[in-house]
Amino acid sequence: MVATGDTQTGAPRQVPSPRGQDLTELDAWWRAANYLSAGQIYLLDNPLLREPLAPEHLKPRLLGHWGTVPGLTLTYAHLNRVIREHASDVLFVAGPGHGAAALNAAAWLEGTYSECFPEVPQDEEGMRRLFRRFSFPGGVPSHASPHVPGSIHEGGELGYALAHATGAALDKPGLVVACVIGDGEAETGPLAASWQAPAFLHPAKDGAVLPILHLNGYKIANPTVLSRLPREDLRSVVRGLGWEPIEVEGTDPEAVHESYAAALHECVERIAEGRRPLVLLRTLKGWTGPVRRDGEPVEGTWRAHQVPLPAVRRDARQLVALEEWLRSYRPGELFDPEGAPVPAVARNCPERGLRMSANPLAHGLVQRGLRLPEVAAHALDVPRPGVRTAESTRALGRYLRDAMRLNRGRRNLLLFSPDEHASNRLDAVFEVTGRRWRLPVEPGDDHLSGDGRVFEVLSEHLCQGWLEGYLLTGGHGLFSCYEAFAHIVDSMVAQHAKWLVTAGEMPWRRPIPSLNYLLTSHVWRQDHNGASHQDPGFIDHILSKRAEVTRVYLPPDANCLLHVADHCLRSRGLVNVIVAGKQPEVQYLDADAARAHCERGFGLWEWASTDGAEPPDVVLACAGDVPTQESLAAVGVLRELVPDLRIRFVNVVDLTRLPVPRRHPHGVPDRDYTAVFPSDTPVIFAFHGYPWLIHELTYNRPNHDHVHVRGFSEHGGTTTPFDTCVQNSIDRFHLALAALERIPRLAGRLGTLWQRLLDRLDRHHDHIRRTGEDLPEIRDWTWSG
Amino acid sequence: MVATGDTQTGAPRQVPSPRGQDLTELDAWWRAANYLSAGQIYLLDNPLLREPLAPEHLKPRLLGHWGTVPGLTLTYAHLNRVIREHASDVLFVAGPGHGAAALNAAAWLEGTYSECFPEVPQDEEGMRRLFRRFSFPGGVPSHASPHVPGSIHEGGELGYALAHATGAALDKPGLVVACVIGDGEAETGPLAASWQAPAFLHPAKDGAVLPILHLNGYKIANPTVLSRLPREDLRSVVRGLGWEPIEVEGTDPEAVHESYAAALHECVERIAEGRRPLVLLRTLKGWTGPVRRDGEPVEGTWRAHQVPLPAVRRDARQLVALEEWLRSYRPGELFDPEGAPVPAVARNCPERGLRMSANPLAHGLVQRGLRLPEVAAHALDVPRPGVRTAESTRALGRYLRDAMRLNRGRRNLLLFSPDEHASNRLDAVFEVTGRRWRLPVEPGDDHLSGDGRVFEVLSEHLCQGWLEGYLLTGGHGLFSCYEAFAHIVDSMVAQHAKWLVTAGEMPWRRPIPSLNYLLTSHVWRQDHNGASHQDPGFIDHILSKRAEVTRVYLPPDANCLLHVADHCLRSRGLVNVIVAGKQPEVQYLDADAARAHCERGFGLWEWASTDGAEPPDVVLACAGDVPTQESLAAVGVLRELVPDLRIRFVNVVDLTRLPVPRRHPHGVPDRDYTAVFPSDTPVIFAFHGYPWLIHELTYNRPNHDHVHVRGFSEHGGTTTPFDTCVQNSIDRFHLALAALERIPRLAGRLGTLWQRLLDRLDRHHDHIRRTGEDLPEIRDWTWSG
Repeated sequence: MVATGDTQTGAPRQVPSPRGQDLTELDAWWRAANYLSAGQIYLLDNPLLREPLAPEHLKPRLLGHWGTVPGLTLTYAHLNRVIREHASDVLFVAGPGHGAAALNAAAWLEGTYSECFPEVPQDEEGMRRLFRRFSFPGGVPSHASPHVPGSIHEGGELGYALAHATGAALDKPGLVVACVIGDGEAETGPLAASWQAPAFLHPAKDGAVLPILHLNGYKIANPTVLSRLPREDLRSVVRGLGWEPIEVEGTDPEAVHESYAAALHECVERIAEGRRPLVLLRTLKGWTGPVRRDGEPVEGTWRAHQVPLPAVRRDARQLVALEEWLRSYRPGELFDPEGAPVPAVARNCPERGLRMSANPLAHGLVQRGLRLPEVAAHALDVPRPGVRTAESTRALGRYLRDAMRLNRGRRNLLLFSPDEHASNRLDAVFEVTGRRWRLPVEPGDDHLSGDGRVFEVLSEHLCQGWLEGYLLTGGHGLFSCYEAFAHIVDSMVAQHAKWLVTAGEMPWRRPIPSLNYLLTSHVWRQDHNGASHQDPGFIDHILSKRAEVTRVYLPPDANCLLHVADHCLRSRGLVNVIVAGKQPEVQYLDADAARAHCERGFGLWEWASTDGAEPPDVVLACAGDVPTQESLAAVGVLRELVPDLRIRFVNVVDLTRLPVPRRHPHGVPDRDYTAVFPSDTPVIFAFHGYPWLIHELTYNRPNHDHVHVRGFSEHGGTTTPFDTCVQNSIDRFHLALAALERIPRLAGRLGTLWQRLLDRLDRHHDHIRRTGEDLPEIRDWTWSG
Repeated sequence: MVATGDTQTGAPRQVPSPRGQDLTELDAWWRAANYLSAGQIYLLDNPLLREPLAPEHLKPRLLGHWGTVPGLTLTYAHLNRVIREHASDVLFVAGPGHGAAALNAAAWLEGTYSECFPEVPQDEEGMRRLFRRFSFPGGVPSHASPHVPGSIHEGGELGYALAHATGAALDKPGLVVACVIGDGEAETGPLAASWQAPAFLHPAKDGAVLPILHLNGYKIANPTVLSRLPREDLRSVVRGLGWEPIEVEGTDPEAVHESYAAALHECVERIAEGRRPLVLLRTLKGWTGPVRRDGEPVEGTWRAHQVPLPAVRRDARQLVALEEWLRSYRPGELFDPEGAPVPAVARNCPERGLRMSANPLAHGLVQRGLRLPEVAAHALDVPRPGVRTAESTRALGRYLRDAMRLNRGRRNLLLFSPDEHASNRLDAVFEVTGRRWRLPVEPGDDHLSGDGRVFEVLSEHLCQGWLEGYLLTGGHGLFSCYEAFAHIVDSMVAQHAKWLVTAGEMPWRRPIPSLNYLLTSHVWRQDHNGASHQDPGFIDHILSKRAEVTRVYLPPDANCLLHVADHCLRSRGLVNVIVAGKQPEVQYLDADAARAHCERGFGLWEWASTDGAEPPDVVLACAGDVPTQESLAAVGVLRELVPDLRIRFVNVVDLTRLPVPRRHPHGVPDRDYTAVFPSDTPVIFAFHGYPWLIHELTYNRPNHDHVHVRGFSEHGGTTTPFDTCVQNSIDRFHLALAALERIPRLAGRLGTLWQRLLDRLDRHHDHIRRTGEDLPEIRDWTWSG
């Protein structure tokens, strides 16, 4: 038993003598929680063991993760003790979220479970149902999910606990976010990066993050790296990153209780001093579970990871061992005859308003309304389409600056970026706030601020994880990112989207502010970076998730971007992806036209069309800023070549208008769709991303055989912006070619028309290779209808 | 100026007195490399500054990253000194890969550039071309890419340098992989996790990794976390993780040269002792570049990140400053009148066979052929389809065990997994090798081994990064992973796929062994984990990359899995994804049938079909193990309901047979396609993944309007395997329904048939909710044709 001590100074501190009665009751609570956890893994019936355990009481399929449970319940019990003593506001984040049984047990003991799920009351029948629904068809998963009261953290994919905890702490002074981190999870990249939090967390204006690194020694089948590092080395690592380690270790419950109680007392004191304690907790994996099985050690080894006695239904010895194990918690002392926790157990629960399982922050119940500026006040003056250029995201930067200003006192809006905020032209925000930075500042540093509201760290994982934690506890935010590198967080955003869907089914959770992305530095402007920086597939990934929670917007210009961003920031419960370039681009719509266009989501641009009242020969459709520019230029090219051509021009801002309503709630009825895309009329669709996304979205539309999509075809390299389009056949000339070859009445002239277009392409190509630049006419786009 | 010292012991060591002449020449080489780097960013012409610099000598678009260049060139120069002195075999990995100009410069000075690109000789015209092609249309990118001789590391997306370096060191005793890590990159998750390498690297059987953490202090616009940590804290972090820091710092070149030379001398000694030195290099960002611009400091600040003088074409003062900067390197002393490096510069280059820019490991030139066992020897005995079950991946485990055995002496095959190797049923491998582990071993640990060939770390990023580094230097390997969590490495695999495409265009690079994935624990067997563990979209992501390098296989049973895995392990230059479950599943094909089927990639299963010589009423097609099982069961259901139904049964192993040949090189001609999928015959396609992937792949096929795909529709939860299928309408009954409603001659009976199927579905549903289990008939699938 290592004594609790301040290992930083080497000298153990005086700890207050723990109260014996208190710790005895705490131990009872712990036993109750462990009993309830094991019960969830095994029992279909006979929840209080009123009868001898028989195979028919057991689940046919045994699923769950016992190994991490006792550490979670132990920590929960001791945090409860702190809460009772100090009336602390604590949010609990369980990194080893596969141990959801522990969290369910705690919530049930606190009464929260029965409040959230009235069909699972705090009595024998409720206990039976708590057990039965765990990992059972129609029930709840074996890992932390939105079903778990008090949780903001999906427990399946590992690595994000500390980032979520850090995000949850932002702007919540007084809150303690206790974050249990498994030593398995600690091997992941995102978790390893998360230790950098002290460089960003404000000790007074944010809550405190209290990491509890649970070194139970094993993953599924292997030891863990951090548990086998020499102890002084591990201390050295976390200390170097800004944390003050406090150690708790042992195999004797009584001694560990004393040690853990003293350690958390110490943590509370240090947090009050603005310091950053961290608990290194070393207890056995599967502690208090079966010691051996078939002669092999289980407790304290990787064999305790999942179900320690897997053959209880067919192996009588294992059945006996299970019954002994369950009875070792002495359930008769823990629950009254009706099955409710006895007072000695219940007394360990904090008062109603302070229960971690009912923390209103976790359920979206605390949200500080976001004030947003008038979009019109930030709109660019665009007297006519095509007469000016602007960096669209710079306009958004001014809008965000004013949003920051309007919410200054509310502390409810944060911006995140992997060191690209200014590069993304959002730097107007720095007029009202700075970049968060808690390390030393040096002369020449740019807009660093100890309590700045822009978080820049060169880790997409941290940006995403911090923002998720912030949103899940009621904040608002935006993550601006390189388009290609958004894939770094593919897996994280999938988990978040799935969380939103399931959370939406829990009536006791309120919809949280949406997760908003601004993807800039997009696929069409990687002229010098080339192929490795070109990947527009993040939106494909997003749209593979449930339609109820996913939205993708491709505003073609600044005023549309403003409307879309405003809409996204006002929304709740969604993942919104906005793709918009940061380079100077032609502007098309004034404030009113942009609002109307964005509200419809897609539609005709009559000023760019030449079909008048007649049925069009061809529809030129587009989505995305660069495709819009090239499609408009293609109209110009076509008008010049075939003056009497009837072209309809369609722009799509909201991709999810395209599919049928049963595919996506934004989908318009076929009637409205065909009013824009007439059946049997060829559509040349210039798309920002991979072409098949448009095919997929329009798959069930009447005219889908006539939709010809040009998009990114994975051709890139070091070249000019226009040549990037040419390489993917999405430039004005290829679009014009594609249109011409689908218009039957031009068949006779096709050869001549083609040749003229190819000649023009050649002229551009020669100029580019000779000078390194596009011809001036590419940027001086002045055509208007 | 901090003296070089062993900061671990605190006592500076005696370092050998550097040779003055040597360091003078080294400095000349450094100046030459810096000159050539700046030249790449700026100059179109006048490469030797024979004339006063004029705007027409300058590139119209200035693109590149100067900030990191001087640190890279400095490190390269000093490593060259080590190589010359010790005849060391060194591979150079440039984490700050945006500084490709530095690597190009070094390769040109060493002559390698001209060997790889004969059109860029080592003379004035060659220098002009070296400059011009950098970030110029049709040229090379501004970041490290396959165009850079000696590089195995794409320099765009940050975070993977140290993982690549670690993978490259595996199985290469004597090699030193020098890995420069930017302090920006060091903030990423994958890099932060990569510091765990000492827990896995064998000091004698692997090469050494020498990290050089370049703390130049700034990212694009922000300071970096590690550069602002108190110095003792940073030392404490890296030391705790197993590295011995050695520091080099300064602003005076001469002093830094002495210090760096001594530091690398110390590194060489420690590496020889099996220790793990690490260099902490603190030099100015953009060192030797412009000190100020418009009154603002540039050198040593974030303003030096990209192009320090961006307005040289229109600002006469900047033009003067650029000329001063370039001339400050005294090019006249560095290059002879023909433009070649003078002997004093050239002498710093190692002998031909030891040049880092020509390390044969980097170009795929060192590959130890892989021996593979006979597939037939490992095939399961499957006398008739459907009469036995097996865990398919367990058969693969035995095959891999024998592969390990056959290659024991060659040390050319490694397996990687995030702690799932045994869970994935590949544990037969442990009969011949163990899990790599260099930390202490404790009783009860399972198959840990100091030089084991199975790498298990709970980080998909590290598994991927290590495997990539190993493949890029000629090794073979397999990464087995949870299907849903493969998304964690989406961005990494995209970079690798793009690398392969571009590398294929460099005749001096040989194709490297393929990157092979085994995705198990797939979407259809997350019965208890539910939605958060279900995501089959990794294959969509893979197939969004260039068809030349991407393959996806869905073997339906063990013998097909063996054939596919064997094929993948033999291949080169590809990314192969194999999706196969690890649960007991029905087996269909014997060894011969499996070989024939896998070679075709897709085809009829006549034994499961009922159409005989007649045209079929319907085609039931499937891809994936669970969909195959349900489709076969659907045949049984349909035969029972409508005995005279003519069903054709088609299984697809190789997804990329489906598209037309212009979409994918594996695509079959329409003639072969329609021989299997007759035009106008309805196809009910049960697909493992998201349905639209099949629509996309068959988009240009004659019958695509008749292909009706059932796949994963993002419905999941805690339930049984069969109910998971039901929730996504891919179970036998829904498939049968889908078939029946598309057969015109059954229209009159459809209501009755439907009702019978719905009744059966209800019976299953009731049983599942009551017992928690599937009806036995679901698993005891004994139907055969």
